[in-house]
Amino acid sequence: MTYRAPVRDIRFCLEEIAALDGLKPTGAFPELSSDLTGAILDEAARLANDVLAPINWTGDQQGCTLKDGQVTTPDGFREAYAKFVEGGWQGLQFSADHGGMGLPRALGCALMEMLQSANMAFGLGPMLSFGAIEALIAVGSPEQRSLYLPKIISGEWSATMNLTEPQAGSDVGALRTKAEPNGDGSWAITGQKIYITWGEHDCTDNIIHLVLARTPDGAPGTRGISLFLVPKFIPDEAGAPGERNSVKAIGLEHKMGIHGSPTCTMEFAGARGWLVGEEFKGMAAMFIMMNSARLNVGVQGVGIAERAYQQAYAFALERRQGRALFGEGEGPHAIIDHPDVRRTLALMKGKIEAARAICFHAAVEADFAEHHDDSEEAAWSKRREDLLIPIAKAWSTDVGVEITSMGVQIHGGMGFIEETGAAQHYRDARITPIYEGTNGIQAIDLVGRKLVRDGGKAMAELIEDIRQTVEDCETSSNPELPALAAQLGPACDALEAASKWMLEADEADRLAGATPFLKLAGDVTGGWLLCVGAVAAQRKLKEKEGDLSYARARIAMTRVYADTVLSSAPGLLGDIQTGAAVLFEPGLTMLESA
Amino acid sequence: MTYRAPVRDIRFCLEEIAALDGLKPTGAFPELSSDLTGAILDEAARLANDVLAPINWTGDQQGCTLKDGQVTTPDGFREAYAKFVEGGWQGLQFSADHGGMGLPRALGCALMEMLQSANMAFGLGPMLSFGAIEALIAVGSPEQRSLYLPKIISGEWSATMNLTEPQAGSDVGALRTKAEPNGDGSWAITGQKIYITWGEHDCTDNIIHLVLARTPDGAPGTRGISLFLVPKFIPDEAGAPGERNSVKAIGLEHKMGIHGSPTCTMEFAGARGWLVGEEFKGMAAMFIMMNSARLNVGVQGVGIAERAYQQAYAFALERRQGRALFGEGEGPHAIIDHPDVRRTLALMKGKIEAARAICFHAAVEADFAEHHDDSEEAAWSKRREDLLIPIAKAWSTDVGVEITSMGVQIHGGMGFIEETGAAQHYRDARITPIYEGTNGIQAIDLVGRKLVRDGGKAMAELIEDIRQTVEDCETSSNPELPALAAQLGPACDALEAASKWMLEADEADRLAGATPFLKLAGDVTGGWLLCVGAVAAQRKLKEKEGDLSYARARIAMTRVYADTVLSSAPGLLGDIQTGAAVLFEPGLTMLESA
Repeated sequence: MTYRAPVRDIRFCLEEIAALDGLKPTGAFPELSSDLTGAILDEAARLANDVLAPINWTGDQQGCTLKDGQVTTPDGFREAYAKFVEGGWQGLQFSADHGGMGLPRALGCALMEMLQSANMAFGLGPMLSFGAIEALIAVGSPEQRSLYLPKIISGEWSATMNLTEPQAGSDVGALRTKAEPNGDGSWAITGQKIYITWGEHDCTDNIIHLVLARTPDGAPGTRGISLFLVPKFIPDEAGAPGERNSVKAIGLEHKMGIHGSPTCTMEFAGARGWLVGEEFKGMAAMFIMMNSARLNVGVQGVGIAERAYQQAYAFALERRQGRALFGEGEGPHAIIDHPDVRRTLALMKGKIEAARAICFHAAVEADFAEHHDDSEEAAWSKRREDLLIPIAKAWSTDVGVEITSMGVQIHGGMGFIEETGAAQHYRDARITPIYEGTNGIQAIDLVGRKLVRDGGKAMAELIEDIRQTVEDCETSSNPELPALAAQLGPACDALEAASKWMLEADEADRLAGATPFLKLAGDVTGGWLLCVGAVAAQRKLKEKEGDLSYARARIAMTRVYADTVLSSAPGLLGDIQTGAAVLFEPGLTMLESA
Repeated sequence: MTYRAPVRDIRFCLEEIAALDGLKPTGAFPELSSDLTGAILDEAARLANDVLAPINWTGDQQGCTLKDGQVTTPDGFREAYAKFVEGGWQGLQFSADHGGMGLPRALGCALMEMLQSANMAFGLGPMLSFGAIEALIAVGSPEQRSLYLPKIISGEWSATMNLTEPQAGSDVGALRTKAEPNGDGSWAITGQKIYITWGEHDCTDNIIHLVLARTPDGAPGTRGISLFLVPKFIPDEAGAPGERNSVKAIGLEHKMGIHGSPTCTMEFAGARGWLVGEEFKGMAAMFIMMNSARLNVGVQGVGIAERAYQQAYAFALERRQGRALFGEGEGPHAIIDHPDVRRTLALMKGKIEAARAICFHAAVEADFAEHHDDSEEAAWSKRREDLLIPIAKAWSTDVGVEITSMGVQIHGGMGFIEETGAAQHYRDARITPIYEGTNGIQAIDLVGRKLVRDGGKAMAELIEDIRQTVEDCETSSNPELPALAAQLGPACDALEAASKWMLEADEADRLAGATPFLKLAGDVTGGWLLCVGAVAAQRKLKEKEGDLSYARARIAMTRVYADTVLSSAPGLLGDIQTGAAVLFEPGLTMLESA
């Protein structure tokens, strides 16, 4: 059950596929260099491998407890969190002005992947703080920023997002939590929030809650919602945790997975809070947190899949059953020598690399969107980021569920036994398609806001990039690359045809096909980015640069993905175009059993 | 979390798709009639709905305990088992000569589905006894049959299958358990078996273990294996449980799901056993149990999917979030009115019906194979049964995992909370692709024994049947049926092309494509059987026979399956034909992370 952060893969993905180095000319990251990237990744890997991974399974078995409003995290979590703070990791991607390291968020994503692989329940704490920091930077007042940001960025305090209420899940606009002015600039927040990740815990001295609530003049629905900052302890004049605020954890969920992450029901009983950003602009602020959080949840999908993969790979090398066609030596062969097992592992690996590339590409474009001094380039990057976010979130988390399931399967009967650890990944992964907007919501976002509202512009730009890679592969001197183009080309045609259909379809048909459309978009975008990596690998082979066997391996792995996943992509068109009519046919009473 | 057995759907599937009534002319089931089928299903539904379903979640939470070799099952299991015995359900499909009801095994499958839906952990007990009964009927001596069968068929005693050892999972031939002659006709069995379902429990007075072991003259591998009967209590002269045998449970697994089912490590310390069938013919006897067990595990996939579906459907009717395009009334709409949710539910339902039809078709053909007096017809049915078994097992259980996952997703955040119950189905379902031969083993069985060794004959017969249904749909007066043919036709072409490729491929390529081939075979066979049902429904519409709205609903549901699943089937061809070369490419060191 050990974990070794895949530094080589992550670095290749950042540098050769997502073009991290391209950020250098923006001037926003003066210290960025390949050496620094390497050093950061190695250091993060040590934290993940040596500190967080060893307490993953024990944390799952032990879980969190709530007593008298106090949450106790599993053994070792407090100490691990202290090391996380000591390394300054919470501030990796935030400006030095706020006490951070001032590095690209793409590197933040790489760190995040390692945290989530090593210990997803633990990684959720820092992930929520990340989102809150982004919101405070974007819309917090100067006073709020100076009072709270240094403490959250250092990790000394943690932060949460409080959106969901029992009647307001995907429909955030239905929330009922009230905010009433106290007359002194602060507000009294009253209501109950559910599913609050790390809402209460024992790892920090203070917890800063960002809470969506409705003010007395707030209209019904999303337009009347505002964002408030509600500290667990109200900072005193010196900025130290002072008066205990009237917000507390009144329940802890009994969940299928991420047992080490306290999922709290929070009660706000007239708690003092401060408006963050403008009144009624809570949803906009929330979307800032959400974009960051959605990308990071996608990265969770990658992380948990990588963890499951590593465990399955190690097992397949060690477990011996039966004789294989290609195996060497006497007696039973390692099951990795059996074609079906090897196919499963290669597919797992290919999908993980594809999902990682989608997430890191989105992250680098987010960095470009923020820092590029050419406004047209910045706008292009913003469009690409926005288009990729729902794909990164939904496709990567679906892959996370699929791959953790394959990981269980590789283990045979042992996979179902909790002590093996494969089951934990499968249970943990299952939340990722649900939170931060269900994958159904992501699909609707993709076909609505990201495709149709944009007039198909961002998608057309993506398809243009894919076509360029098809051409690069076709004209390569390495005969394996035209074979990639032969799969990527038709897959891209299918994505283009499906996009055109979506742009012309009425709303109901579009919504009915949203989920398979997102799958197609993810299959193709992931495959494209693997091919970008294959082209880079081919260049290295030609120039005899770096580890040539790794470069060859990247091409071979891309072949497997192309032959299995990309080859099936055109077949999704029919599913996408099913339309709403047959689903809403009055005769479909069949849905009712018995 | 209630469950209502889908009697109407099951009956339609048995009678209109699987042609249960066709068994009547064989003379083997003189009492079989549509009225009897209805009465049996209604009575089984009462047991499932009222007795077994209510203790499913509590059984999961409580689990089993082992103390001093004694296993205690969860509260209510003993009482429920007593009702199961009282109803005579264990004997439903076994000949009256042995004390059974003498009904077709297809009805046994229908019962099994209800048991598994209602309470999978409980249902495993009877399922294992079913397999042992089949083996004893087939190869037991007259004395063994008369001594043990009545007790097992009545349910008074239960039975187990003991195959797996730590080093012998998929590779059964690697087992080390020894059997040495005692000189009195009995054998001394020594060894340890793992993953023994219901190996020890408190619901019956005796437990009859069927155990694979190697005799002193047994060759290495599968050829040297024999089957033994090892009772927990050795029956005395009156047939009552006598001397305690030296077999006991020494461990209970801590599993991801089916917590109410005791999964035991069994120690045989020179336990007295009796040879069942001939020495060295243990594998053949095991395959008798396995064929029955594999089909029943497929039925488990159907059952757990149906349970998850019913719960998701009820939730989608009740849960209100946001405004939908087609919803009625003020305020938030039921989420079933959202196209993406409705698509998910319709797809769940379609796949469940398809999987059920595959399993029941296999069961009816198994009945024909056993009872048809025309030997050519019987041989045809046997070929069809054999071809369908791996598909029924693997495709239905993959569907079970997929659908229980969709069931979690429909619930949003609540799906991840254990109290909701959706998570239990997801956890329980995950074992089904693993046990009774992993789904990878099933895929290898399909492309090897069932396709190539048979020269493609059984598959050609299946394709012929599918073509007939394509024609029936094309020529229907109902314009919806040609629309089905438009999807089923190309899907069938793809299955034919893939089968042809498999027959010509070398062994390594065939094994590399086995898993996607099985998926294609399941997608198409399931879709074909739904179309058979649609043709029957159209006949009922035309003749104004029975519930016409149900007939219309069957056609609409088949449309959804055809437009979503069948339309994607041809796209699987590339994946199937990937071949082994790219998987065994020496450069694929990429598989090693870090």
